Amino acid sequence: MKLCRTGEAGQESPALVDADGRLRDLSAHVADLDGTAIGPDGLARLAAIDTATLPLVEGPVRYGPPVAGTRQFVAIGLNYADHAAESNLPIPEEPVVFNKWVSCIQGPNDPVIIPFDSRKTDWEVELGVVIGTTAHRVSEADALAHVAGYCVINDVSEREWQTERGATWDKGKGFPTFGPVGPWLVTADEVGDPQALSMWLDVNGVRKQDGSTQTMIFTVAQIVAYLSQFMTLLPGDIITTGTPPGVGLGQKPEPWYLKPGDVVALGIDKLGEQRQSFVAAN
Amino acid sequence: MKLCRTGEAGQESPALVDADGRLRDLSAHVADLDGTAIGPDGLARLAAIDTATLPLVEGPVRYGPPVAGTRQFVAIGLNYADHAAESNLPIPEEPVVFNKWVSCIQGPNDPVIIPFDSRKTDWEVELGVVIGTTAHRVSEADALAHVAGYCVINDVSEREWQTERGATWDKGKGFPTFGPVGPWLVTADEVGDPQALSMWLDVNGVRKQDGSTQTMIFTVAQIVAYLSQFMTLLPGDIITTGTPPGVGLGQKPEPWYLKPGDVVALGIDKLGEQRQSFVAAN
Repeated sequence: MKLCRTGEAGQESPALVDADGRLRDLSAHVADLDGTAIGPDGLARLAAIDTATLPLVEGPVRYGPPVAGTRQFVAIGLNYADHAAESNLPIPEEPVVFNKWVSCIQGPNDPVIIPFDSRKTDWEVELGVVIGTTAHRVSEADALAHVAGYCVINDVSEREWQTERGATWDKGKGFPTFGPVGPWLVTADEVGDPQALSMWLDVNGVRKQDGSTQTMIFTVAQIVAYLSQFMTLLPGDIITTGTPPGVGLGQKPEPWYLKPGDVVALGIDKLGEQRQSFVAAN
Repeated sequence: MKLCRTGEAGQESPALVDADGRLRDLSAHVADLDGTAIGPDGLARLAAIDTATLPLVEGPVRYGPPVAGTRQFVAIGLNYADHAAESNLPIPEEPVVFNKWVSCIQGPNDPVIIPFDSRKTDWEVELGVVIGTTAHRVSEADALAHVAGYCVINDVSEREWQTERGATWDKGKGFPTFGPVGPWLVTADEVGDPQALSMWLDVNGVRKQDGSTQTMIFTVAQIVAYLSQFMTLLPGDIITTGTPPGVGLGQKPEPWYLKPGDVVALGIDKLGEQRQSFVAAN
């Protein structure tokens, strides 16, 4: 299934994409696509619905983030060998873990705000992993059973705030609007192998990132198992799993960053596409 | 007001402490002490109640965390000059920001689990700040108006995971049970100046930390204003503001850490006390 949430920010309704690519309203069957709704029982109930009986969602829609009420937005850094190289950092021996504040989560096509005093706002196409069942100290073999599905994420980053303002990265990753998620939560059964998805990102129509989850250093199963040793992953949590090469920081002959008016488009096989206008802060 | 939540984990009821120190049940007036309930309107409604009309909460109680549904648990590092020195780290020029996963939040007296392979589980008494209204890009002068109140926090930390396992601190701060909060949310009007609170922590009855919020490098107002430049603080969010000297990492002649069977007690002026048994992971 491709699940999504459409409507005004904060008032989204649940929907799904039917076999013909049309949006169908799920609100008679589930109040919202929160951690409970996307657990195994919730997904089984949704999968049992005859989609032809669901009302069509008409007209142009705004997509919200496809999961409601996310409590933890966990991020993995430097998870593609070539991206570690362009960042002039060694390939990590174990996953680099940081946090995106959940208040930065927004819809996939909502404008992204370049902060008032930002000089280094950057892009990162990433595979998002949405947790379906609580995971603590799970093995790599069991890890994917805790995954409800996958989505596209732009892990928008302010590089100066991330790396030049003290010991941790968390300052540069969670500014409001820095977490576009969606358009869809595509359930794990429909995605199949999460390590065989091509991904791309364009800035103003020019291809900047062109990679595949095949080249991840740590796989989704390894990441989920690893994180679960240090924390409890909750239903509805999102893990963003690192970016392939081609971010602004890695541009040659020198880094360059986003400015108001730039448009970023990105996508991942099977998971859909995003498109954001970057705008100046008020 | 001193607000709290009592009962079994996950099923707590709201309560307050009356002028005679007795617990009174608030559940007829508010469903739970979430971000909405502790906003200015919510607190005004609670303050208007004649506490004598509230049923007494009888018998020994378990305290839960005094705020429900916290979405962001923000932490400040090295915010006392003497603690930076004992950690062999320079005094920061601006606040060090990291994250505690919200899934680590628990009641103030619940047992704390020493992770299976932990060698460096440590204690940190800290002043907790609970946000009452959304704060983004607020000034230092306006910052305290966004604070609902204060609480005691033990910022339990695994030092090896924090500092020897890659670039960020977030691995070592959010293991389940590493976030005891409470017993009370004491409203800002009752606390007065947050920079004049003495604080202490004992391990097995021996005083280890004995400090005061007077010696913070960055004040609560500065921290709230600073964080709000990088993120949006939401009602119900908790900021833990750093610890004075005397943690396990700083013990002389050499660091030592907690082991199963140890008991940690801690408290802050006006905000109450916590007491945790440290236990081995299953």
